[in-house]
Parts: sequence; structure tokens; C-alpha cells
Amino acid sequence: MAAFDFTPFLAPDLPPPAARFNGFPRYNFVGGHNDPAQIPVDALTAAANAVLRREGRTLATYGMESGPLGYRPLREFLAAKMKRHAGIACSPDDILVTNGSLQGLDLVNGILLAPGDTVLIERDTYGGALTRLSRLKVKTVGVPLDKEGLIPEALDKALVDLAAQGVKPKYIYTIPTVQNPTGAIMSEARRAAILKIAEAHGVPIFEDECYSDLVWAGARPPAFYAMTKTDNVIHIGSFSKSIAPAFRIGYIVARPDLLSRMQALKTDGGSGALDQMVLAEFCQGHFHDHVPKLSKALRAKLETLMESLSERFGTAAEFDDPPGGIFLWIKLPDVVDTVRLGQVALAEGVALNPGPEWSTDKARAKCRLRLCFANPDHDTIRAGVAKLAEICQREFGVPLRSANVEAARS
Amino acid sequence: MAAFDFTPFLAPDLPPPAARFNGFPRYNFVGGHNDPAQIPVDALTAAANAVLRREGRTLATYGMESGPLGYRPLREFLAAKMKRHAGIACSPDDILVTNGSLQGLDLVNGILLAPGDTVLIERDTYGGALTRLSRLKVKTVGVPLDKEGLIPEALDKALVDLAAQGVKPKYIYTIPTVQNPTGAIMSEARRAAILKIAEAHGVPIFEDECYSDLVWAGARPPAFYAMTKTDNVIHIGSFSKSIAPAFRIGYIVARPDLLSRMQALKTDGGSGALDQMVLAEFCQGHFHDHVPKLSKALRAKLETLMESLSERFGTAAEFDDPPGGIFLWIKLPDVVDTVRLGQVALAEGVALNPGPEWSTDKARAKCRLRLCFANPDHDTIRAGVAKLAEICQREFGVPLRSANVEAARS
Repeated sequence: MAAFDFTPFLAPDLPPPAARFNGFPRYNFVGGHNDPAQIPVDALTAAANAVLRREGRTLATYGMESGPLGYRPLREFLAAKMKRHAGIACSPDDILVTNGSLQGLDLVNGILLAPGDTVLIERDTYGGALTRLSRLKVKTVGVPLDKEGLIPEALDKALVDLAAQGVKPKYIYTIPTVQNPTGAIMSEARRAAILKIAEAHGVPIFEDECYSDLVWAGARPPAFYAMTKTDNVIHIGSFSKSIAPAFRIGYIVARPDLLSRMQALKTDGGSGALDQMVLAEFCQGHFHDHVPKLSKALRAKLETLMESLSERFGTAAEFDDPPGGIFLWIKLPDVVDTVRLGQVALAEGVALNPGPEWSTDKARAKCRLRLCFANPDHDTIRAGVAKLAEICQREFGVPLRSANVEAARS
Repeated sequence: MAAFDFTPFLAPDLPPPAARFNGFPRYNFVGGHNDPAQIPVDALTAAANAVLRREGRTLATYGMESGPLGYRPLREFLAAKMKRHAGIACSPDDILVTNGSLQGLDLVNGILLAPGDTVLIERDTYGGALTRLSRLKVKTVGVPLDKEGLIPEALDKALVDLAAQGVKPKYIYTIPTVQNPTGAIMSEARRAAILKIAEAHGVPIFEDECYSDLVWAGARPPAFYAMTKTDNVIHIGSFSKSIAPAFRIGYIVARPDLLSRMQALKTDGGSGALDQMVLAEFCQGHFHDHVPKLSKALRAKLETLMESLSERFGTAAEFDDPPGGIFLWIKLPDVVDTVRLGQVALAEGVALNPGPEWSTDKARAKCRLRLCFANPDHDTIRAGVAKLAEICQREFGVPLRSANVEAARS
């Protein structure tokens, strides 16, 4: 019998089907992957042992007797950690554990957005946030950034312009601490200015702090959530960058009236039990030692990346030395089209994020790209950048003389 | 400053906010919770140790190097298990690991349904499936059941009636093996008849087998997915009932063209790493011993429940002895309104599922209810049923003479 034709049964407006996974590319500069050498395997194993022996029987219930907000010891750890690091005063009942901050994005969008809505977003921003908004048929207005992140005057102008059109945006989406992709950390004064503008215009702030643990200097300014006096902020975060991305554990901090709305949209019966339990057990004893150690290893990889770029691309690759994170935002000469560069490079085993996928200003971002440095080892970073320079030289004549050729001649 | 008013920012048509969790009721006969005494804590701990030591470093990547379909050893176990138990011939690449079968429901609905669509569904069915469909503004047509599940003639009639109205339903949703709430197991001949009708009408079957491991007899008939010659079936399942509900691990088996569509809607970066890894490690060595042991313990609890009901309600409580599962579907005399009974009982610590929440035929289900027996221990089952009988007697005069009173007199 012929195979059933499902085509007429599919819902309208589905996103394109996912591509088949064929393993990671050899030089993998994309995705929020982390450094395999920094996974605290022994301590995680010990944590798994301890928590399973002590509380394993609670696996018999949905939510491990902690209810639908998530494993209570994890929420208790988070409340204490956010108080200490980000100045946030919240109770475990103000926290919803999610499947990574990705589900956080979906739940916040779910309670606030409808097709035709408008949101303000950093001009260069996380590609997955842009994809989600486009799929929701929500208009994005990009606001320029500088080395301190979102520019207050530009934000105010965007809000005034929208108000003149009778449009009130649903939120201002910002990644204030280790901005993706620029790496910028917004100063406390800048945050105060942004908050004042948001409050003056009566617009909520949606703050995404999923990279905020990875700051070379250790300390970071207080979160918007800590600074608001009007409770107009929703905060999301994650353990993906600070511990391991395969743990699908993030969190939302929000007022109970909003959290209960998001809970109603989280229809998956809770996030993974062992991921939550083992993380909580591990974090209580080890988070504060682990993160500086991880940051140091990441900083070293960043230095290898920046050195390799300078060596292979010379002045053709422009970038700021970011104060934290797992990625570098790079400008190449205007002649380079990073979308095409990305396609050609991928075919040769080098994966990168083309700028236009990470920006609301596709034209400005055409010659920009993001490289993630946490996953490849130092040698792979060097070899990958060399390969990329070779491809870029061949395709765009940039850098002017391939460092490879140079090296061969010397 | 006054608190920010989020009301005008909320999306239209949100579901009601989630209720605050205040712990489980004392006599908890609702939810897919399992028996704490049957959680295989030692073997799970050993599995966590083994897999973390061997593969812990893979936590550094999204998907533990297995790609977005889920942890490959788990999909390999599932492919072998489904072949052996349910006759399904599929490869690990035909399986998408999900956050429980709940996310499976959402993803299947996501690729197929749009507001105004119609689906066929068993007249008495999983309340969460009904809630989801109602939220999606999808019309449900209930098809009567008997002791073997969905009745072929009734299904055919429903399809003919819909065709006469020019309506082609998007799918036939069925729980063929341990039907929720009736517990019925559809015979192979019945499945063949249902499949023939679905194929004649050109309608897909959506088969939910999340309880299918818990069959007292051990063996079960082949799945629809194994029987179709036209590939018109989508299959979902779960480890929630066979191992532990707090593990948020279910799965979808579907044609690659459909699976890639669902993958595109699974925007949470994958399901919990440790839940997947520890389950896979545990299942390879222990699934086949564990399930019969668990089934035996559940069967004993079911017997306690049935005995308590007979003792406390006498002939007022009518039910079939189900061939598997974790719940009992009960008919009380017509005078009983189980929605009201449920409200009063909950206030006194007894939680139950009122029939109307588990049925498309609210009037017929008014005097019916579902009691889950896996979580409470034997004494709690007995005390809970006694309490329920007392409340029901007080509220509805049923059972005619309270067994409590009877007992006090004897």
C-alpha cells in the first residue's frame, strides 16, 4: 500500500523541518557548548550518589514533592546565589525551574506576545531570540549598543518613535551581563538609566542573564530585577553556561502573578528530575569554586582565539576583548559576506554564526560574525581560525595576504 | 512607586493561572504518581555512577553528542524494547526523546492541529489530552468504548457522520494498551479493525502508549505503529509509569518527515541529560526485571483498592478489574455528582478525578470517577476509600448505609 500522505494534515505556518544531525563539525565555533575538560565529573558523580540515596524515592512523584515550580533545594540555592551575585531579593516561590533559559524565552513570550506585537531588542542579539519572535509574527525594533550595551538615548528615541505611531512595545529584551554577541557588561549607572526610561514609558524589561556567571572579574553589577522599584522586570537565567549545557536547567524569576501564568503554559510535567537534583546537590558545595575555575579556562581559550585571529587575519579582524562569556563578535572588512563565508566554511568543517542571524540590522551585520570558543580545545581553535582565514582569503581576498601563504614563505 | 500593571501586556486567551502548590493531599488518588517503594534506588545510583564516570564529559555539549533526537543509547534501548514488546520495527533515528509523553502530546498536536480542526477521541480519555485540545480550540468527537476499547462500528459511524458534514478529522487519538481511564487493552483483532477503518477514511491514528508497560499478564498485542502498512500512525510512550514520573522522559516514534517537523517545534534544547543517561544505563540491565516486579506491586494495590471499594461502597461502586495500569474507573449511582464529590472530598484530604474531566460525554460521566492507586500505600488506600464513602454517603446518600456506620454497629 502507498505511504500515507500527511501533507494535508499538517498545521499551517510550521517552521522548516529540522536538519538531520550528522555529528558536530570539526571546527565547531557555534552553539553554547562548553569545555569538556571543565565538566566537574567527580563532584557531579558524588552529588548524584548522595542525592539519589537520600531522596531517590521522591522520584515516584511528579515534581519530587517540591511542586510544579521545580525542585525546592535548587530554587533555594538559586535564591541565595542571586541575592549574593546579582542583588536579587526573591524567595524560592518566585522562581520557576525551566528546561534551560530557552524554555524561559518561550514561556515569557507565551504569556506576553501575540502576532502583530512589537518588542524592543538589542540590535545585535541572540539569534534564537530573533527566530522565536519572527515565528511568533512579532515585530522587532533593534536598539543600538555600545561597549556598555544598550544605549539609553537610542532606547528613549525608539520608544518615543513608537509612541508617535501609537505603538507600545510588549517588552525591552536585554542581555545586560555578557551581552550576546558583543560580550558587553552594562554598568550599574547604565542600568539605572535604562530602567528609568523603561519606567517613564511604562514598558517591561525582559532581562536574560544566561551568561552572567561567566565574568572574568568575578563580580558583576546588580540585575535589573534587583534594581526596579516597580516590579516591571522579568529575569531568566541558566546553568547551561556555568555548569553544562546538556543539563536542561534554567529558571525564570518573576512576580507570582506572572509566574503562575507561565506555569500554566509549562505543560511538560516539570523539568528533568536528576538534572535538577544533581545540580542542586553539586551547586551547594561546589558552584562557587567551580565557576572561577571554569572562567579562567574560558579566558585562556578566548586569548588563544584572539591571538589566532590577530595572527591569521591581522587588522582585518576587529573585535573588543570581552569581559566574559563564551563568544567573540568580530567585524571583517565590508567586502566579506559572512552568510556566504559561513556556508563555504561549514562545507570545509568550520562552523560559525554569520552576523545577520544575530542582528536586527542585517546590512550592518553582513561583515560580522560570532565565534564561540568554549568547546574546541586550544589547538582546534588555532587550526580552525587558520582554516577560516584561508577560506576567507580565497572567497573574499581578505585577509589581503593569507597568513598561511606568508607562513609557507617564511 | 506603584507596582507595574502587567494586565494590558498579557497575551489574549491565556489559560487560568496555575494554583499554588501546598503539598499533596493526604489521600492522593490523582496524578500519574508511582509507588515510592518501587523506585529502584540502588540500581539507579549505580547507573548514575557508571554513566557519569564513563561519559560525564559529554555533558559539555547540547545533546551529549547524540544530536537533537536525544541520547542515542536511550533511543537504541527503546528501539529494541519496542521491537520485542510491541512489534515495532524502527531505528533509533525514528525516535525523538521528549519531556515525558506530555511534551509528545504537545509536539504531535503542534504539527497537526489548528483552531477549528476536529479530532476523534475515545469518549472516556486522558483529561490532559482534552484540556490541550480545548486550549487549541480543536473540536473533539468522542467515540464509545467497550471492554476492548474503541468500538470499530462506532468509529466508522463517527467518520461517516463527519464526512457527511465535509469534515475530515486530523487524527484518531487512542490509548490502546491500558486505556485511560478504563484500563482496557485492545485485542489485536480489534486493532486490525480500527486500522482498516482509519485507512479506509484516510485518517491518521495517534496512539498513546504511556501505560503500556504495566500489563499484569506481561505480554501485550502489537502496537498500531507495528501493524500499519501505510505509515499513518504516530506513536508516543513514556518511562513515567514504568520507572518514575519525575524522570521527564517520553518519546515519539514517527516517520522521519514528521519527526523533523516536531523537532523544529521542540525549542527547549533537548530533554534532561541525566534523566536520559541514567535511564538508558539502568534500562539496559534492569528494565526487564523491574517492570514485572513493579506490576506485581501495583496489582496488589489495585486489589486493595477494589476490596476497599466493595467493602465501603458495596454494589454502589461498579468497575471492571483492569488488566493493567495505575487507575480504576468507577461508576457510582446516577445521583452522585463526582465534580461536587471531588470538591468536598478534596477539602477533607481526598483527591480524585471527577468523570466529566476525563470524558467527552460530561452527562454520562457525571457519576463516574477515576482513582489512581499507585502512590498511596495499602493502609492509605483503605483509609482514603473509607473516608470517600463517608463523604459520599453524607453528600449523596450513597452508599445507602455507610459502611463506617455499619462497622461501628457490628
